[in-house]
Amino acid sequence: MEKIKVFCPATIANVSCGFDVLGLALDSVGDEMTVRKTADKGIRISKIIGQDLPMEAEKNVAGVAGLALLAKSDYDGGFEIEIDKRIKPGSGIGSSAASSTGAVWAMNELLGNPFSKLELVQFAMEGEKLASDVAHADNVAPAIYGGFTLVRSYEPLDIIPIPTPSELYATVIHPQIEIKTSDSRKILKTTISMQQGIQQWGNLGGLVAGLFQNDYDLIGRSLHDHIVEPIRSILIPAFDDIKANALKAGALGSGISGSGPSIFALSKGEETAKQVAESMKKTYQNIAVDFDIHISKVNSQGVKKIA
Amino acid sequence: MEKIKVFCPATIANVSCGFDVLGLALDSVGDEMTVRKTADKGIRISKIIGQDLPMEAEKNVAGVAGLALLAKSDYDGGFEIEIDKRIKPGSGIGSSAASSTGAVWAMNELLGNPFSKLELVQFAMEGEKLASDVAHADNVAPAIYGGFTLVRSYEPLDIIPIPTPSELYATVIHPQIEIKTSDSRKILKTTISMQQGIQQWGNLGGLVAGLFQNDYDLIGRSLHDHIVEPIRSILIPAFDDIKANALKAGALGSGISGSGPSIFALSKGEETAKQVAESMKKTYQNIAVDFDIHISKVNSQGVKKIA
Repeated sequence: MEKIKVFCPATIANVSCGFDVLGLALDSVGDEMTVRKTADKGIRISKIIGQDLPMEAEKNVAGVAGLALLAKSDYDGGFEIEIDKRIKPGSGIGSSAASSTGAVWAMNELLGNPFSKLELVQFAMEGEKLASDVAHADNVAPAIYGGFTLVRSYEPLDIIPIPTPSELYATVIHPQIEIKTSDSRKILKTTISMQQGIQQWGNLGGLVAGLFQNDYDLIGRSLHDHIVEPIRSILIPAFDDIKANALKAGALGSGISGSGPSIFALSKGEETAKQVAESMKKTYQNIAVDFDIHISKVNSQGVKKIA
Repeated sequence: MEKIKVFCPATIANVSCGFDVLGLALDSVGDEMTVRKTADKGIRISKIIGQDLPMEAEKNVAGVAGLALLAKSDYDGGFEIEIDKRIKPGSGIGSSAASSTGAVWAMNELLGNPFSKLELVQFAMEGEKLASDVAHADNVAPAIYGGFTLVRSYEPLDIIPIPTPSELYATVIHPQIEIKTSDSRKILKTTISMQQGIQQWGNLGGLVAGLFQNDYDLIGRSLHDHIVEPIRSILIPAFDDIKANALKAGALGSGISGSGPSIFALSKGEETAKQVAESMKKTYQNIAVDFDIHISKVNSQGVKKIA
């Protein structure tokens, strides 16, 4: 195979109670990338559609992730990448992770899959480091593995795929303001109270148990974040209203997607996810905030070949 | 039924990564209690074998838990309790929880089970409050439900039973020193670093996933406590050696049982649990520390009728 086209999903990181460890992949939102083998060494980004992003490999997350892969490979050629960038950077649904992941997953396919999923996560994390100064894995892991993933540990990196109930849908609304991940990390505190910690690991355990047991009610009861949400939500227009209305419309839970500004809600069934979307839309329309909105099944496959 | 005899299991709370939320029940260690209906109202403790404990209901954890149940019941009689106290108070394996649990579970049986398991946990928590000033649920929950339990939330109280892999065995060594739960709580910090929190909820999620998947290796990788163990272990003779030798002998993980001083290890299979016990014994024999030691399957049933 000389050329491959891939779909790389948008992802929701943190998922309320799983700050820096939990993420999930979306099904209907993502970038499309075409990657070709080239005789020339290195990475060349030949085209970017949809967004104004750096074409130099060393300054582009897909390029940097690809270079990390190349550095560990004995392949003596290179790759050319075209990116159809459908996820807006700074939206909080894993824009950089999708491009990083798509690049390294496609390259691995073209090379006959010499690298494991865990290694691909590590390469893609180099793209994350470029994007936000921190090589976090909570977006790239679900983009690679699909479904929900838990980053149990960073050193050593240990990714645990968690089963996804089949009727779980996400609604994500993206108010058209940009928050840089690096900025939204700066406002976080470096200490938390023991009591907040206990609540958080109780909820994280409850969420994981709910996912394993298809217990939608338990999933909902566990979707709380007493640590990061109260701080970061201040940066997001009408966060409290969007969340309250989503819950009123039937969502199991709602919170900040990644570092925001997108707000997600999880629902049982597509019908409820659509009603949640309507309630979110109305909230922003009433106060004249522009937005994008997505309704998506939780994707259990992750990045995939589409041509 | 006018009289019942029950076995109430010892329990391991915290289980390394689940401070204040996780617990598990043992199979071969526990108190035995006989409870009889009486025409006289209130609770009378008629006999305590094995330990020197208060006979007044208001000063005894079983009595206090029983009184909490009576206060919510329309039963117009009372109960007489005999306690064969086999778990040493202050050992860190849920001595007070076993007596509190046994009392309320037995009374509920004698009354035809008017109360749910969750309500029984709440009554038994009153006994815990008497014992350690804090109405914690991480010992009483596994004593009532059996297996592993997660206290997802205290307000409202939400107990999540977690499945227990069938080959999971606990080894518990109890050095003959007493640490009061209330004292061992005092030395804890009231804040933790965000980084410690992230490690902890990553591990808690990993442990829950490992238990659901019968993934013993993942269970082992998740049994870490970077928050409480470094502080409390200072109070326990040769903690680091006991733990290191248990791991060398094949344990999946090891840590402080509850607030100590008991040290637990979890192993796959009884044979390994016995080897771990040998290594723990030798460590204390070498430095002349007296101890009790227990090897037990993780009990999936909890408190039960034995006569």
